[in-house]
Amino acid sequence: MHPLDPIFKPKSIAIVGASRDPKAIGHQCVKNLIESGYEGKIYPVNPKADEIKGLKCYHSILDIPDEVDIALIVVPAKYVPAVADDCGKKGVKGLVIIASGFSEVGRKDLEDQVVEIARKYNMRILGPNVVGIMNNPLKANASFGPYLPYPGKAALISQSGALLIAMDARTWSDKVGISHMISIGNMADLNFGDLIEYFNEDPDTNVISLYMEGVKDGRKFLEKTKKSKKPIIALKAGVSQRGAAAAASHTGSLAGSTKIYDAAFKQGHVVRAENLDALFDETMALALQPPMKGDNLLIITNGGGVGVLATDAAERYGIPIKDAPDDLKLLMMKHMPEFGSPKNPVDLTGMADAQQYYGSIKDALKHDWVDGIVVLFCETSFTDPLEISQNIKKAIDEAGVNKPVIVNYTGGEASVKAGEWLIENGIPYYKSPDAAVRAIAALRTYGRYQDKETSKFVPYKVNKEKAEAIIHKTIGCGRTILTEPEAKEVFAAYGLPVPKGKLAKTEEEAVKIAHAVEYPVVMKIVSPQIIHKSDAGGVKVNIKSDEEVRQAFHDIIENAKRYDPHAEIHGVYVQHMEPWGTETIIGSTYDKQFGPTVMFGLGGVFVEILKDVTFRIAPFSEDEAMDMIKEIKGYKILRGARGEKPRDVKAIAEAISRLSQLVWDFRDYIKEVDANPVMAYEDGIKIVDARIILKTKK
Amino acid sequence: MHPLDPIFKPKSIAIVGASRDPKAIGHQCVKNLIESGYEGKIYPVNPKADEIKGLKCYHSILDIPDEVDIALIVVPAKYVPAVADDCGKKGVKGLVIIASGFSEVGRKDLEDQVVEIARKYNMRILGPNVVGIMNNPLKANASFGPYLPYPGKAALISQSGALLIAMDARTWSDKVGISHMISIGNMADLNFGDLIEYFNEDPDTNVISLYMEGVKDGRKFLEKTKKSKKPIIALKAGVSQRGAAAAASHTGSLAGSTKIYDAAFKQGHVVRAENLDALFDETMALALQPPMKGDNLLIITNGGGVGVLATDAAERYGIPIKDAPDDLKLLMMKHMPEFGSPKNPVDLTGMADAQQYYGSIKDALKHDWVDGIVVLFCETSFTDPLEISQNIKKAIDEAGVNKPVIVNYTGGEASVKAGEWLIENGIPYYKSPDAAVRAIAALRTYGRYQDKETSKFVPYKVNKEKAEAIIHKTIGCGRTILTEPEAKEVFAAYGLPVPKGKLAKTEEEAVKIAHAVEYPVVMKIVSPQIIHKSDAGGVKVNIKSDEEVRQAFHDIIENAKRYDPHAEIHGVYVQHMEPWGTETIIGSTYDKQFGPTVMFGLGGVFVEILKDVTFRIAPFSEDEAMDMIKEIKGYKILRGARGEKPRDVKAIAEAISRLSQLVWDFRDYIKEVDANPVMAYEDGIKIVDARIILKTKK
Repeated sequence: MHPLDPIFKPKSIAIVGASRDPKAIGHQCVKNLIESGYEGKIYPVNPKADEIKGLKCYHSILDIPDEVDIALIVVPAKYVPAVADDCGKKGVKGLVIIASGFSEVGRKDLEDQVVEIARKYNMRILGPNVVGIMNNPLKANASFGPYLPYPGKAALISQSGALLIAMDARTWSDKVGISHMISIGNMADLNFGDLIEYFNEDPDTNVISLYMEGVKDGRKFLEKTKKSKKPIIALKAGVSQRGAAAAASHTGSLAGSTKIYDAAFKQGHVVRAENLDALFDETMALALQPPMKGDNLLIITNGGGVGVLATDAAERYGIPIKDAPDDLKLLMMKHMPEFGSPKNPVDLTGMADAQQYYGSIKDALKHDWVDGIVVLFCETSFTDPLEISQNIKKAIDEAGVNKPVIVNYTGGEASVKAGEWLIENGIPYYKSPDAAVRAIAALRTYGRYQDKETSKFVPYKVNKEKAEAIIHKTIGCGRTILTEPEAKEVFAAYGLPVPKGKLAKTEEEAVKIAHAVEYPVVMKIVSPQIIHKSDAGGVKVNIKSDEEVRQAFHDIIENAKRYDPHAEIHGVYVQHMEPWGTETIIGSTYDKQFGPTVMFGLGGVFVEILKDVTFRIAPFSEDEAMDMIKEIKGYKILRGARGEKPRDVKAIAEAISRLSQLVWDFRDYIKEVDANPVMAYEDGIKIVDARIILKTKK
Repeated sequence: MHPLDPIFKPKSIAIVGASRDPKAIGHQCVKNLIESGYEGKIYPVNPKADEIKGLKCYHSILDIPDEVDIALIVVPAKYVPAVADDCGKKGVKGLVIIASGFSEVGRKDLEDQVVEIARKYNMRILGPNVVGIMNNPLKANASFGPYLPYPGKAALISQSGALLIAMDARTWSDKVGISHMISIGNMADLNFGDLIEYFNEDPDTNVISLYMEGVKDGRKFLEKTKKSKKPIIALKAGVSQRGAAAAASHTGSLAGSTKIYDAAFKQGHVVRAENLDALFDETMALALQPPMKGDNLLIITNGGGVGVLATDAAERYGIPIKDAPDDLKLLMMKHMPEFGSPKNPVDLTGMADAQQYYGSIKDALKHDWVDGIVVLFCETSFTDPLEISQNIKKAIDEAGVNKPVIVNYTGGEASVKAGEWLIENGIPYYKSPDAAVRAIAALRTYGRYQDKETSKFVPYKVNKEKAEAIIHKTIGCGRTILTEPEAKEVFAAYGLPVPKGKLAKTEEEAVKIAHAVEYPVVMKIVSPQIIHKSDAGGVKVNIKSDEEVRQAFHDIIENAKRYDPHAEIHGVYVQHMEPWGTETIIGSTYDKQFGPTVMFGLGGVFVEILKDVTFRIAPFSEDEAMDMIKEIKGYKILRGARGEKPRDVKAIAEAISRLSQLVWDFRDYIKEVDANPVMAYEDGIKIVDARIILKTKK
């Protein structure tokens, strides 16, 4: 038995704060449980009532003679701690705290108090500030939402209560089938990750669908989504700057950076829905159809126009249409008049009947090349869409293969009815070609996630002790910024390719180092107080002789003293001057929800003007780093634009992955890392400048 | 009376090829006309029948005793010329050629023959290869589509017949009101432009909605759209590479480049629909609501979640949400509980009732700051959505202002019904927050088009004769590429800033010119046969002395001779070497549908890697050119990135506009122009290299 079973498969439910007033939420919960057809035991609790809706009402939860699995708590916030304590004493397993007035209005203290009580008694909490749980398998509407959703196989979890109730109604008009609809509220205890884990084991659920405004522990969330054996789809609200602010003021949760969520969803294998329509549409597809295991999408249509629209959409959603192979074309020609087109889109022409749809779909599904089909049908005056539906189903059944089929009918009532018939028979139907293609693209995204070797991060052998020593020394000196030599040493300890270089305390030392690292060299002031070295006249480049080294050393020290007479001067860093290469940037920031993240981009206009950068949550493998590299617009440059040879992307990927290990290992210390520029050559890379900033102690 | 009135307001309709076979299109057309309630005269024509559907059938159109306004022609293609001739003799005004088998299957000859006959008799043609005309004001379904569309104020014109029939049905389920639904077919005569012009004068129509795969005469189309006093919205199919190919094979029309259509729609003030759903949704909004005349969008909601989603959508669709001014916030606070939020989105909270919606909407509409409102409502268990609808309408009516209001209800059947009530009362309703915001964004786009000073192109004073002489001389020499000095002279004649320079035939001339244009200079070989001058060793830069000039002249000539012993050598072009600036590119290509177009972008990675370029149809004003400049991603660089001073964008805009005049003036000759690089400085610009390629004679 799963520890959350008492919450999602309760044998008995108490409603603490049950009410005789039909307008009260405490009344609605009782009523909903009775009317939805729940066959477990229902115990209203109210110190002042003896009977509610024909059920015996208990004055305290402690008075209930039987075991109680979950308690819906609908008393005012201030009474919740006392109620929770009673529940604990009673041996209740889970509290569904519908009551609001906790962290969402600034009363985190009250919320913490309740969590503490729950922990003491080993109870789990859903909420506070929730609508409740709508449980279709048990026919239990344990919420103040008006009715159970349209039954089906998707677990839909929402961070917004009002939206949950509204979506509940929409499941019926859209016929998107739901197993459980769960309002997750403030997530004081149970969060998205917990529910994802639970519904992975739930036989009534085959897709987990999320409306999210923010997560509390991003890493825990990702661990759970990554392990999921069922598809997860999420609509992340607050992706615009203003929307993020609105989300923050709405749930009090940090909305987080869109780019970080992008990364997290990719790494966590979460399909992202672009809006509410997409969430519904794609949930249906993921619930009813298998993932698409390759890129070969075939479109079968009776209308050229919708075929073109679907082709446009396929490119937009990342599965561009390809020419069908010749043998498939020959097969398709059997099912169309002479003036039809066997290319992709396969145009059966406006004369197509149900039989031709049947034949072409069946033959196409059985053909090896085809990975998935979008069937389009323009309502005509001589064809009954229902007959088309029945023949689509027959074709799929008889083909007996595990490939997705998605249908769009463009038309009126008859098409809608025929489409609903399809949905009832397990075949997703959409009102527009665009929506149909978007849905199969979601199945393709999930297919790609499945195919992706779970390229686990295997830590590199590094000299962690050395890095640790340098970082601790810096902290010991009361500093939060490592000097450049320190940062480069940390990098080197992690196998990151830095130029040869060393700190010189005297002119003579500088000359010796210059010989050791080889000319030409760069020389830079090293002082904890001097951050903007160039401004201080503390940088000299392209130095080619001993004489120049001596002069540069002298000038740099003099300039530094003039710039800041109180600066503590460690010396001058003498470094081999690397040749020019393609400038890239690897960086890291510490995200409040997801912890250390790593960023990659090209230098120059790409980062400054175009913000052409991509993120991942650290640590991660070289394969994942390679995906980052391929994802940026500037990738073409690295591949070798304008007649140049390709850059060593493998070396870049390794550096990104190693840096992800560094920031993960020192996640308690490191706030920001900046490797900029990282020169990329045909063979290898060099990190020319390095910066590490530590967190300030609390 | 408009010359197309007989076609769209016919008093009598003949069906040539009428049939007694209920399955025949010639039967359906008769039946549809009768059953739709058309009150004009219906004349079936069939040499072998005396009566069809209770109407007298004529053996020839010439036998009809009365006048005939339009003839629907449903005979096989090969008989159409004879029928057309009869129609001409009869004095028919318009032919609606439903018959197919013309240019769409390669029989352009047959189509041309019919057009010629029609011209002879002064008849207009719709088609061939059409479904027909569905005319709601006259209740005339003159088509083989099954019924008239949902009645309303949009004229919907489709280039795909199958899609037209399917859309016909969908107008009823979506409740998108249509005045006329017209299948435009092969556009042998009447095209989009003609119908746009006509429906501009039609009192039953207030928005013109297009499904387009391609246009035949892009310029005529733009002239008509630009003059339109009513909004025009278009879904352009075939925007992906593969989709364009599919569109081409579907209608035989050239789909054209997406970027060129982007330009054309902007210049022609056509609202672009991103897909079929958007076409329906935005058509409804444009038909029912006034344009949005400013950027201040207010969102009023009862659910934080949908408020966040709408805020995200607003940014995506180009009308980012702003903070409401304080006095508006105070007004809003009157209509919400204490825990509501008067910010934008205005959150009335889940407790909001119809009265609060009424009050907040009315107050907001009357407030000067507000330019438009999106009202969101999450279905709750205690509010009747219909009551919300009624109160929204009441608020709008009582506010009595001309600002758009768009509504989204998220919910089930009750919400849908309440939404339909809204639509019937002139207020657009959508099923998702995203769709609602997208719809008001279309109203904003149209509002912006209206606001945009019709910045007419006023030709610059240029030396057209000189340019003409050079171009004619080039043609006279049997060349299609102007040499660099020739191209620069043409540019200079059009006031385009080129560096000082002149052709030198001898070393001594070269030295003289170098003095005249001032050192440093660049020297380049001038030979019609040598296109890749650098490859030929024909370019020397940064020449600073007479000695160097002589040497360069000698080397260039020698290199050229070695490179191509047969090359005709005009001499060496000596040009002042301009200092480095921000590299931009201005170019022109001749588009098959739209004629001469002008392209602008930044040089380097922006054009090569990012394809960050934008187009316009020539000629156009400096204002329009300024919009181009602001549209590219690299605009930030021109505005002055990384501490640099802004570049002279006004000078760039002038050059773009002047170049648009040049390519327009010589549209019969010029195929391509390339000004690359155009150096942009803080003050002024210089076109460093110029190329003009002429069309090859046919």
